[in-house]
Amino acid sequence: MSEIRVVTNILQANDELNAVNRKELDKKGIYVINLMSSPGSGKTSILEKIITKLKSDIKIAVIEGDLYTTKDAQRIEAKGVPVVQINTGGACHLDAYMIKDAINNLDLDGLELLIVENVGNLVCPAEFEIGEDIKITVLSTTEGNDKPLKYPLAFEKSGVVILNKIDLIEYTDFDKQRFYDDVRSINEKATFFETSCTKDLGLDELCIWIKNKVKKIKTR
Amino acid sequence: MSEIRVVTNILQANDELNAVNRKELDKKGIYVINLMSSPGSGKTSILEKIITKLKSDIKIAVIEGDLYTTKDAQRIEAKGVPVVQINTGGACHLDAYMIKDAINNLDLDGLELLIVENVGNLVCPAEFEIGEDIKITVLSTTEGNDKPLKYPLAFEKSGVVILNKIDLIEYTDFDKQRFYDDVRSINEKATFFETSCTKDLGLDELCIWIKNKVKKIKTR
Repeated sequence: MSEIRVVTNILQANDELNAVNRKELDKKGIYVINLMSSPGSGKTSILEKIITKLKSDIKIAVIEGDLYTTKDAQRIEAKGVPVVQINTGGACHLDAYMIKDAINNLDLDGLELLIVENVGNLVCPAEFEIGEDIKITVLSTTEGNDKPLKYPLAFEKSGVVILNKIDLIEYTDFDKQRFYDDVRSINEKATFFETSCTKDLGLDELCIWIKNKVKKIKTR
Repeated sequence: MSEIRVVTNILQANDELNAVNRKELDKKGIYVINLMSSPGSGKTSILEKIITKLKSDIKIAVIEGDLYTTKDAQRIEAKGVPVVQINTGGACHLDAYMIKDAINNLDLDGLELLIVENVGNLVCPAEFEIGEDIKITVLSTTEGNDKPLKYPLAFEKSGVVILNKIDLIEYTDFDKQRFYDDVRSINEKATFFETSCTKDLGLDELCIWIKNKVKKIKTR
């Protein structure tokens, strides 16, 4: 089918712009996180927590990817950091072209951490590099432990995998051992965190990890 | 960008095959459901329940859409109904072409209900008609009540919207009134069901509704 050829072309164009974004962001010494998950796994809630915990130490900006709304951007703005909204107009992922446009609308000077919250979609976003240093994939316990093997690309490409809504695990049949084994079978190196935004669990550890990464980039 | 033109062409080709599928399935008097949701909302669990409750009354078959695995198809096969697995090889939705191929591998004679479980993705599947009589979108309470406006197309195009994992709502901040108001603002006609597969709630009502639809198609 012609679809496959088309996608290849899009990915190639994306790779070129990804390199442009990386060069620009590297030059400024900014650590860039591409945050991915299904809808409703808790990306925005985690982001709110990270900002609250880190913003006095690190200069943070956020790019919010959504189909049409500015709901998440409003939540992030309320936390007091610069945020640029990308509305994809229905498209199912962010790409390097959109990010290039968004970073042109951000003041990069002095910025240390840029977090890009991708469109809620466990399939498509993982195919598109956008200029990030690392991909972080969030799965919530309520989604089921079978997801890493069903939607492998996001888990395979992520440097960090966050198991969120850990406080709800007791109400589900989520098999944690199976989950970790499955992720390990496709990704030997990912760092794991278990978090709950409502109970504030695991988020301090995640923030320490991010802080170290930001420090490393700056002394590079 | 060239992307938009390409997508239009794909959608047009899909529409043509959708019409072919509809004609074939209509001729046989089969009621066809396109079941959509994010990963982990509970599509497969709902499907298992529906099959168990209806299979002695109605002749059911299932088409399972997944990226790579046959996990869900195995779960459905264990319930004792014919199932055809479509592996999209990474593609984020089912299309009419895939369904055409799948129905060629099903015995349609005497079949009354065909349920197509789409790829877990709240964005892309809603764009592609596959030959269905109705789209049903599932949202789980743990995903948050903001999803209909953030991912409107699936909710807008669905004849039925199921709010699943209703037993977990007390552990979330899900605002049910807001959810219903938001869906109503983009879809005046959708029928609502609230379900829980672990507590077996709302599923009998859903099955009665489906049974009536199947009966209507047969007497058409």
